[in-house]
Amino acid sequence: MDGALGKQFLSDYIAQTNESYALLLNREIEKARKVGEIPAQILEAFSKTALRGKRIRGALMQLGYEAAGGTDIASVQHASLSVELLHAGLLVHDDIMDRDDVRRGLPSMHVQFAKVGKSLSVVDPKHFGLSQAINIADAAYYLSLEVLVNSDFSPETLVSALRVYAEHVVRTAYGQELDVANIASQRLTEHEILSVVKYKTAEYTGVMPFLMGAALAGLEDERRLDIMREYAYNFGWAFQIQDDVLGLYGDEELGKPIGSDIQEGKNTLLMLKLYELGSDDDREFMAQTLGKQDLSVAEVGEMRKRVKDSGAYQVVYDMAAGYVGKGREQVIHITHEKRVQNILESLIIYMLERAV
Amino acid sequence: MDGALGKQFLSDYIAQTNESYALLLNREIEKARKVGEIPAQILEAFSKTALRGKRIRGALMQLGYEAAGGTDIASVQHASLSVELLHAGLLVHDDIMDRDDVRRGLPSMHVQFAKVGKSLSVVDPKHFGLSQAINIADAAYYLSLEVLVNSDFSPETLVSALRVYAEHVVRTAYGQELDVANIASQRLTEHEILSVVKYKTAEYTGVMPFLMGAALAGLEDERRLDIMREYAYNFGWAFQIQDDVLGLYGDEELGKPIGSDIQEGKNTLLMLKLYELGSDDDREFMAQTLGKQDLSVAEVGEMRKRVKDSGAYQVVYDMAAGYVGKGREQVIHITHEKRVQNILESLIIYMLERAV
Repeated sequence: MDGALGKQFLSDYIAQTNESYALLLNREIEKARKVGEIPAQILEAFSKTALRGKRIRGALMQLGYEAAGGTDIASVQHASLSVELLHAGLLVHDDIMDRDDVRRGLPSMHVQFAKVGKSLSVVDPKHFGLSQAINIADAAYYLSLEVLVNSDFSPETLVSALRVYAEHVVRTAYGQELDVANIASQRLTEHEILSVVKYKTAEYTGVMPFLMGAALAGLEDERRLDIMREYAYNFGWAFQIQDDVLGLYGDEELGKPIGSDIQEGKNTLLMLKLYELGSDDDREFMAQTLGKQDLSVAEVGEMRKRVKDSGAYQVVYDMAAGYVGKGREQVIHITHEKRVQNILESLIIYMLERAV
Repeated sequence: MDGALGKQFLSDYIAQTNESYALLLNREIEKARKVGEIPAQILEAFSKTALRGKRIRGALMQLGYEAAGGTDIASVQHASLSVELLHAGLLVHDDIMDRDDVRRGLPSMHVQFAKVGKSLSVVDPKHFGLSQAINIADAAYYLSLEVLVNSDFSPETLVSALRVYAEHVVRTAYGQELDVANIASQRLTEHEILSVVKYKTAEYTGVMPFLMGAALAGLEDERRLDIMREYAYNFGWAFQIQDDVLGLYGDEELGKPIGSDIQEGKNTLLMLKLYELGSDDDREFMAQTLGKQDLSVAEVGEMRKRVKDSGAYQVVYDMAAGYVGKGREQVIHITHEKRVQNILESLIIYMLERAV
């Protein structure tokens, strides 16, 4: 078994939702225009970046729905755009906090809107850009909710999905608060760094969409939901570790400048392990390099080498492989449908194979 | 008829919800603590300001519920905390955009969190404060949703209330986008300035909570909902105009520094009318004063005088009185219950009498 089937499922999901996602956003742009030209213009810019998402969360919601026995694929695909809109919104706020200027190969929202502010000759274009970026994410959160509450499911299943949704996004915001403290102070404990991954990513990327899908299929069996949660939790961890790896070893194709994680001074698992396993010289190098604004390509290369040489890379890779293994173990208990089993297994494997 | 009964309803609502609001927030603080100390600390700071709200929106939700025939007051009061949490969250983002350093007599969230950042010796305390303020509002939005989806109503009525909620908050965010452009560029048309009031306040403060209450009571009669919408829309306008008046003529008891609206360069209705009705000298004075950072008390006094002398104040006051009158006309068609009729009428009158 490899990640090919999972990769295929993901690209099928993208192909099948592309049109309705674009249509939904265009309809919203026209609604925004009734309020004013500025809201329409801002939502238009947001839409372009939103449509470029990997859509792992939306696809996972569909998969949770299918795994729980749901059969109305068109409806769940439409409803799943809600988690994509939410995610796109959260990234806008994330980019402000991380001072990320590029997202999915385009300038981040706060950067784009600062340019709009400049063209409007406002006094402080940067503050204008920041403000409008805050606003468009707020709008996206409630567009996300609107998609969900107007989707084609019974009120009972909707409320059940909404409970999963609200509970997890609250904790995602808490995880983000830890992450901000993480970057800013570098004083977090290992427990806190792991909490960031747990709440900001593993639960939010894996558990939330997967269990929302199950809720929309009407699944209430607590035992089976626990097994699904276990799969999705491991899925989220595998995803995040690969994200860290790509953040350090990936190229510009990711839509982010090389070395941006180092520049932000992110305490990723790779950095934590380099700190633990590396030499005094490695720790000295980390202290000098993490958070450095004028990072050279040579320094990025040096960091890559040290992470491998210290064994940090291998330890983290083994962790990720462990999560994939634990996730795969659950699959047989989630559903009897062979087709869905295969996709679930392949997709979690693909989380470590993916290069974007 | 005066505003006494409405004022009483409002203070009863505050007294009756105080304990459960504090309890809810404390429970959430303990849940946040499981994620980390920082999320708990941040939510604690947010709670102190949140509890100081005027709670007009929550009270209006209860009133919409009662007007539509609902009788489970305890449940609607608990559910109504959702709009209070949402509102408290939106204000945090609003204070960032308006650079307001004071809210409800306490330092704004971004100011408080910048101090936290300083105590943690982070590199950029201001950016830390900004980031955590963005985060706590995001958390508050989903705490708001959590309160609603876990409240004691049937899934059908909840989904119906959620549709009202999502639709209006999206437009509130668009209104906020216009407001940011409003302050920044001072190039908005009269239509756009009125759109800010319409979407950012009148619909959001009046229509949203009132119709959410009606939805929770199970009201589906479109004709009656239209009448309720008309009442609430006028309520929102009256509220906003008084807010502008208090922003210019109110004292520090409001929890905001005197003249802060002028300092922010807000294009309020009072400013729009002064621009239209005033002399060239008035317009010259406006151009020099709006957005001025080192505003003197004398300049605030001068602005107050010009707004009165030009007739702008009277025109705006008459507008507000018109909204109150139109709102009152609807009351008899909303409900046959004399008690609720009286409160509805008195409360909209109170919107122009209130000094806080």
